[in-house]
Amino acid sequence: MLNKPRLLTPGPTPLPEEVRLALSRDMVHHRKQDFVRVMEGIQPGLQYLFGTSQQVLPLSCSGTGAMYAAVCMLFSPGERVLVVEGGKFGERWREIATAHGLETTSIQLEPGRAVSAEQVRTALAARPEIRGVLVQASETSTGVLHPVRELGEVTAGTDVLLVVDGISAVGVSPCPMDAWNVDCLLTGSQKGLMLPPGLALVSLSSRAWDRAREAHSGNFYFNLLAEKEKNAGNQTLFTSPVNLLQGLAVSLEMFHRETLEAVYRKQWAMTRMVRAGVRSLGLELLAKTHFTWGLTSITLPEGADSGRILKIAAESCGVIMSGGQGAWKKTMLRFGHMGHVDWSDVLAGLYALRKGLVESGGHAASGTYLEDAMEAYEDALKNGYAEEGGDNE
Amino acid sequence: MLNKPRLLTPGPTPLPEEVRLALSRDMVHHRKQDFVRVMEGIQPGLQYLFGTSQQVLPLSCSGTGAMYAAVCMLFSPGERVLVVEGGKFGERWREIATAHGLETTSIQLEPGRAVSAEQVRTALAARPEIRGVLVQASETSTGVLHPVRELGEVTAGTDVLLVVDGISAVGVSPCPMDAWNVDCLLTGSQKGLMLPPGLALVSLSSRAWDRAREAHSGNFYFNLLAEKEKNAGNQTLFTSPVNLLQGLAVSLEMFHRETLEAVYRKQWAMTRMVRAGVRSLGLELLAKTHFTWGLTSITLPEGADSGRILKIAAESCGVIMSGGQGAWKKTMLRFGHMGHVDWSDVLAGLYALRKGLVESGGHAASGTYLEDAMEAYEDALKNGYAEEGGDNE
Repeated sequence: MLNKPRLLTPGPTPLPEEVRLALSRDMVHHRKQDFVRVMEGIQPGLQYLFGTSQQVLPLSCSGTGAMYAAVCMLFSPGERVLVVEGGKFGERWREIATAHGLETTSIQLEPGRAVSAEQVRTALAARPEIRGVLVQASETSTGVLHPVRELGEVTAGTDVLLVVDGISAVGVSPCPMDAWNVDCLLTGSQKGLMLPPGLALVSLSSRAWDRAREAHSGNFYFNLLAEKEKNAGNQTLFTSPVNLLQGLAVSLEMFHRETLEAVYRKQWAMTRMVRAGVRSLGLELLAKTHFTWGLTSITLPEGADSGRILKIAAESCGVIMSGGQGAWKKTMLRFGHMGHVDWSDVLAGLYALRKGLVESGGHAASGTYLEDAMEAYEDALKNGYAEEGGDNE
Repeated sequence: MLNKPRLLTPGPTPLPEEVRLALSRDMVHHRKQDFVRVMEGIQPGLQYLFGTSQQVLPLSCSGTGAMYAAVCMLFSPGERVLVVEGGKFGERWREIATAHGLETTSIQLEPGRAVSAEQVRTALAARPEIRGVLVQASETSTGVLHPVRELGEVTAGTDVLLVVDGISAVGVSPCPMDAWNVDCLLTGSQKGLMLPPGLALVSLSSRAWDRAREAHSGNFYFNLLAEKEKNAGNQTLFTSPVNLLQGLAVSLEMFHRETLEAVYRKQWAMTRMVRAGVRSLGLELLAKTHFTWGLTSITLPEGADSGRILKIAAESCGVIMSGGQGAWKKTMLRFGHMGHVDWSDVLAGLYALRKGLVESGGHAASGTYLEDAMEAYEDALKNGYAEEGGDNE
């Protein structure tokens, strides 16, 4: 009661009241007209969000389920894929590919670094049998934004499919699927879309559909070809997560009303805001360039422990943030600001971050970090964003 | 506004207000303490519901996903399973087994008939290499309740696993997993549990866990061994459907408060109620014995069309029921009364059924069908149920 809880993690994000009301609606039957209308209604909004003229298919699973679906549908065991491994979710691509019986070639990146188009071009040239590139738009474990547009320029003229995990990017930063030559774009409901987890969305390019028809996946649950056919009649292959889809309809209406451009502009401005505030505190950012929007990864000073900082932030300020993943659990802090979060939440987050750091025995510059953050926010809102992302700092 | 909508289908079922309020709560993070407490809190309630001392694992998928998970975890490609095919969901077991590369032997049943323990015993004797029996507790496409307890007596002393799809049975009619020697019991959220779809639950017996360790499933998303390990720390392997699990906590509290016995007694009484009313209207029941609780399948008179009846019931009474599936789409009507439905909803359903039948040009006895139904309900409530199901009529 003393502090309002504020969820500032890289997803799930807080839910808008309109969405929460939709989530609490009584059931409609997933094979009846009321639900068919929901399915019909969401398709244009999904295509707008994905920047595609292709169907966008809802699946009843987490984001990882959609990653697995994509790999099973597009590649046959024995084929080789190139994996961009820039963190935990890049590793997950490799694990999924391996579980499906694919051969993998990895580009291993230092934490905080994005892949370059040149690295991908070179890797593809060295191994002409590579059939696809698996990459994150945003690597959520490190807060790095890979240059998807440039990768699309590399793969577009070739026989290689570009498969993009957009889980913490779709609805947060631009990733227009058709314009950027993405062959498969997927996301989960609990990030930019401001919904609870449990719903994934996936879309394939026309040439990816051709590949899916060749690959003859043996996966019974994730059969995107059968799903596509059902979707054409505004149905799902199996029972669909009805209340999440009702919530999605509301979320997509909000995107339509505000426009994607305005949402990106806000997300960009909040990202600049956090970076300015964190720098003003004398802290180090993990990603110097190519940084994810909606998430800022902070490398903590020697001796600091993210667990203690997070505990203080939660208990004395109500602010919930995340630590690092894997080896960086203690030494990294991830400040989420995607989805239904605004500048005032970010101010609270910066205050809680400083409090946690100082009270756990660390050092932070005092001074004008909150004002510096607000100024960066206002400037970025006014000046707007570059579609390709964060390398213009 | 003139008629309240009443969902009387075999799932999804209407949602209790308490559950709807839980579904609309703002997000908590799936890796943080608030959610760990939800996970910890639901486990005893799930074990009570499943009648097991084993862990019950939540999965982010539809019921079909859990069926697929079970098959992938318990059997290796090339092994043979016995499939009880009594309708569309029995067929689904076969399709899943085939997709996973298993050999199948099927027991084909006429619609409306349950399998017998003798049929299963004979089939197992003829093919000693059979490693498992795949069966529905309740075959939702026909409204038949298979004798799971008796099947458990057949498989208990052997090396054969009994794998039970309890999607429209768990929380509706008894299927105590441990007492009945069930090796795998699974369900979905949108039936007896009174939740939206999108969450599945699965539990394995100790010898099924041993088998899972042998089978070495290659399924990345449905890895129950890894899921079990995570569950021991009140976590899920991948991002969990947070709001459905928050709703589940409330639903399980309701089961605890009312007791399973009282819920079964009510479901049994409503089942007797619908059967009495339907017979009093001069209509024919598909399942004569071994009928599903919570769902009544009606064979329509010659010339009647379920589509027209359902349309009238929906448009002039607000009552949503289901037709048959596949070949019986037009000639069968499925009246659902599971989950959050009570006797008054059933009365409305009987009235709407008669109205639809008569106004679409069919015949139905007039007279005392509503009173007959209420009398059957009161009698059944008083006399109670036999645990094994519906063959005592």
